[in-house]
Amino acid sequence: MEQMRADMRRVAIYDTTLRDGTQAEEINLTLDDKIRIAVKLDELGIDYIEGGWPGSNPVDKQFFQEIGNYSLKHARIAAFGSTHNPKSTADGDSNLQALVEAAPQVMTVFGKTWDLHAKEALRIPLERNLEIISASLAFLRPHAPELFFDAEHFFDGYKANPEYALRCLDAALQGGAEVLVLCDTNGGTMPAELREIMTAVKARFPQARLGIHAHNDSELAVANSLEAVAQGAEHIQGTMNGYGERCGNANLCSIIPNLTLKMGCTCLSEDNLALLTPVSHFVSEVANLRPFLRQPFVGRSAFAHKGGIHVSAVIRNPETYEHIRPELVGNKQRVLLSDLAGRSNILVKAKNYGYELDKNDPCVQDLLHEIKDREALGYEYSAAEASFELLFFRTMGWSKRYFQLMNFRVLDSHEQNGEPFSEATVLLKVRGQDHHTAATGHGPVNALDNALRKALCEAYPALNEMRLLDFKVRVMTGYVRDDGGTASKVRVLIESGDKLSRWITVGVSHNIIEASWQALVDSFTYKLFKDDPQKWPNKPEK
Amino acid sequence: MEQMRADMRRVAIYDTTLRDGTQAEEINLTLDDKIRIAVKLDELGIDYIEGGWPGSNPVDKQFFQEIGNYSLKHARIAAFGSTHNPKSTADGDSNLQALVEAAPQVMTVFGKTWDLHAKEALRIPLERNLEIISASLAFLRPHAPELFFDAEHFFDGYKANPEYALRCLDAALQGGAEVLVLCDTNGGTMPAELREIMTAVKARFPQARLGIHAHNDSELAVANSLEAVAQGAEHIQGTMNGYGERCGNANLCSIIPNLTLKMGCTCLSEDNLALLTPVSHFVSEVANLRPFLRQPFVGRSAFAHKGGIHVSAVIRNPETYEHIRPELVGNKQRVLLSDLAGRSNILVKAKNYGYELDKNDPCVQDLLHEIKDREALGYEYSAAEASFELLFFRTMGWSKRYFQLMNFRVLDSHEQNGEPFSEATVLLKVRGQDHHTAATGHGPVNALDNALRKALCEAYPALNEMRLLDFKVRVMTGYVRDDGGTASKVRVLIESGDKLSRWITVGVSHNIIEASWQALVDSFTYKLFKDDPQKWPNKPEK
Repeated sequence: MEQMRADMRRVAIYDTTLRDGTQAEEINLTLDDKIRIAVKLDELGIDYIEGGWPGSNPVDKQFFQEIGNYSLKHARIAAFGSTHNPKSTADGDSNLQALVEAAPQVMTVFGKTWDLHAKEALRIPLERNLEIISASLAFLRPHAPELFFDAEHFFDGYKANPEYALRCLDAALQGGAEVLVLCDTNGGTMPAELREIMTAVKARFPQARLGIHAHNDSELAVANSLEAVAQGAEHIQGTMNGYGERCGNANLCSIIPNLTLKMGCTCLSEDNLALLTPVSHFVSEVANLRPFLRQPFVGRSAFAHKGGIHVSAVIRNPETYEHIRPELVGNKQRVLLSDLAGRSNILVKAKNYGYELDKNDPCVQDLLHEIKDREALGYEYSAAEASFELLFFRTMGWSKRYFQLMNFRVLDSHEQNGEPFSEATVLLKVRGQDHHTAATGHGPVNALDNALRKALCEAYPALNEMRLLDFKVRVMTGYVRDDGGTASKVRVLIESGDKLSRWITVGVSHNIIEASWQALVDSFTYKLFKDDPQKWPNKPEK
Repeated sequence: MEQMRADMRRVAIYDTTLRDGTQAEEINLTLDDKIRIAVKLDELGIDYIEGGWPGSNPVDKQFFQEIGNYSLKHARIAAFGSTHNPKSTADGDSNLQALVEAAPQVMTVFGKTWDLHAKEALRIPLERNLEIISASLAFLRPHAPELFFDAEHFFDGYKANPEYALRCLDAALQGGAEVLVLCDTNGGTMPAELREIMTAVKARFPQARLGIHAHNDSELAVANSLEAVAQGAEHIQGTMNGYGERCGNANLCSIIPNLTLKMGCTCLSEDNLALLTPVSHFVSEVANLRPFLRQPFVGRSAFAHKGGIHVSAVIRNPETYEHIRPELVGNKQRVLLSDLAGRSNILVKAKNYGYELDKNDPCVQDLLHEIKDREALGYEYSAAEASFELLFFRTMGWSKRYFQLMNFRVLDSHEQNGEPFSEATVLLKVRGQDHHTAATGHGPVNALDNALRKALCEAYPALNEMRLLDFKVRVMTGYVRDDGGTASKVRVLIESGDKLSRWITVGVSHNIIEASWQALVDSFTYKLFKDDPQKWPNKPEK
């Protein structure tokens, strides 16, 4: 395996989240968002941060002024632009002028290298495109501390007309480009093609410094980037979380750990790899996108174990089902509950709750049966850990009830031309006393929540600290009845929180109100339970 | 580029969505879900469908009984299991017995090939593991029309102890395995390592049929699967949308088009590639996971263009920014944030409804505004075409109302120790007459549906033909209020059908009952509208 590792080469990481990343369908960043992300990427130790295309929009232009007010530790700021307009000259081109005015430490200019594009997009003769490339770069050269050429569509261009594509690279070198960044703009290139084409490029330009810019349209952007490094590329462009147009750019959150942990390269300025997960989540937070659970290395599920066999092995030795130690990238191991779960998952949970149980303890068996029975009814405990914890303690013999339902009613009505109206009444016994309350709400579940809260807060004022944070409904079609979909089973998950923690509870029924009620009751009970100093006199100390 | 294409080899596709896919954190499938997915995968032309692990849980066991009631067109059903327990013998092992009882067309047995696992997970001598592998397969051989061996952790095993890993494969061949499926169970293998290791396997077993089972922990599962095919693998295991444990399995939705369109292989039983996108979405729908926008080939953003330069070029010639024609995989080009796109979409729809409209027609502008306003409120018409069609005709001047709501009420109650109870009353004006009805139901929406139906069926007996088929709820957290999750906005989609067709309608409100009511009203209205010979006297003939 010698030649696969042991490079210890330095590969430069060039982040284009702020430019190419914002081409993603659902991403829109303000100037302030961009600055926050740039500062965070610098902390991570990224070498180059492409801030935008100053010639294309005012926010990008402002970015280059504003970022000057921040002293970055390591990163160099790059501005992006195109070669000059075919109708003008380099020194009369407003786009190149905007690059000069932005005065970044690095200028990255893209040009056409696919004959189809010169003909169909620019509608100019092929020779004219070559002139444009070298003239644009030569014009910028005196203004650019570093100057890179993004060879747009290079691989498609090479496949269509290899000689012309190579001549475009030559024009860029003539113009003064320091790195030739080969772009798989449409994302359709296969790693074997990339290898073959890069071999041809190296044969033609043995001294050139090469880079790679891959898109993920074939789900191969990471593989292509790594293959390019194996072929000698010393500069990788990509984005955080792979954000970008269509299927996204090459995902730096996967490329960086692969290079560092698997291919023996060094990437980040310092030993900052453990910042990767928090920075990835920070960027998704600022971009207001829900993090992708299954994302390699940094996703919440990336080191989550569900199957019983896997859980017992991974606890004994993480190497058995984890390709790297999650801490290396700032992530962590998680053990999930589910109908596939075995005894060992339960033992791990029990340990978290302070119990050292033996796997042959009858309680473990009881709980396993209980979970399987309830999951067959549609309950799902891997998502609802608070409901699981209550179930666990009930099985262990905890029998305290903070309140008892006598009845509830929810009334929804809608008069002609009126607003929909929801009202709930709740009758509970709390410490032997009846509490009968009524409340309205923005919908039936909100009304029920309000009435329940009213009925309990006198006896348990701590409930005032707690809020419902999220509410999810899943209609389970496995339970569809012959008479139609509305009688399907419904699973409700409610996330609640107070100042100290967050918890999720579950309810299941044919009736959405009943399912919501169950999840609400578990949520209120869990809050009281976790705050209760006397909940479990026999509970051993952790 | 010769050797990259021109294979025209047949590669078998083995789908394990129903088994390995359900190891994903957020996936839980009922028996009915599994059957629906299996039938759909068969339609797509998948060769092998792994239905589950009959020895591990009752749902998987039932699957193999139930699937026998369906006649599949092409796919063969596989059951999964492990080699026998080290404490027992092959013929006394309950897990192998369960495989035999499931009586599938294919049995796939996994065994340990990494010395670490034999020592640390099984805690047995290395020689004993070899015996277990060959004895387990030999026991199953007479019961298995086809028998595959999943060499768990093969690549890690090879890296740790190459000779032992190869001996495990030999044991599987001795036991009668027809395909040796090399598994990258932890997902940590790099394509270059895979290439080198497969070369060694081929050198040792030149006659063996090889398969690949890759996980995506390094974001390389697709690349590794394709590299394995390049190295001679003729069998690929993976899942729809890459669902699976941790970071997921190799994504068949990317592997299949890459093999077919880029590598010249044939995969699906017929020329079914254009079913890929709808089947991918079907599976995410049944699993109740939001489809991943940026997913290669099948994602909603996969051929979506945002940037101005890209849009104008791609409209002139799609090849400029699309690596394949989206129609090949059943997807489509989308142009984002563009008035032009909106308008042309509407013109296409209008044509479907029999109208040749001009793009400057004021109706088109009105409708565009109406849709944008309503989508900002949370309505989603791409999923609810029946609601869109009603909106279209309303905008075109159609003003007929089949009934008018005076009011409705829904009461849900739950007495101590009782069953939850739902009752609805509806007061409508139908052709000038009051209709006041009451009905119970399995939940509030079912009660409302029943009462509405009762109120309308006298005047419109055709409604008896119609049934509600599906009901979906999405809580939209973009609309979460300060006071908690239960006041979030709720979108309800209802699918209905009669003998001739199916249609989907939408409702949105803070109140789930109100949102359901809107979708129900649209559904009933649509049924009456589509059957109404006088709905639109001025409507031109198609």
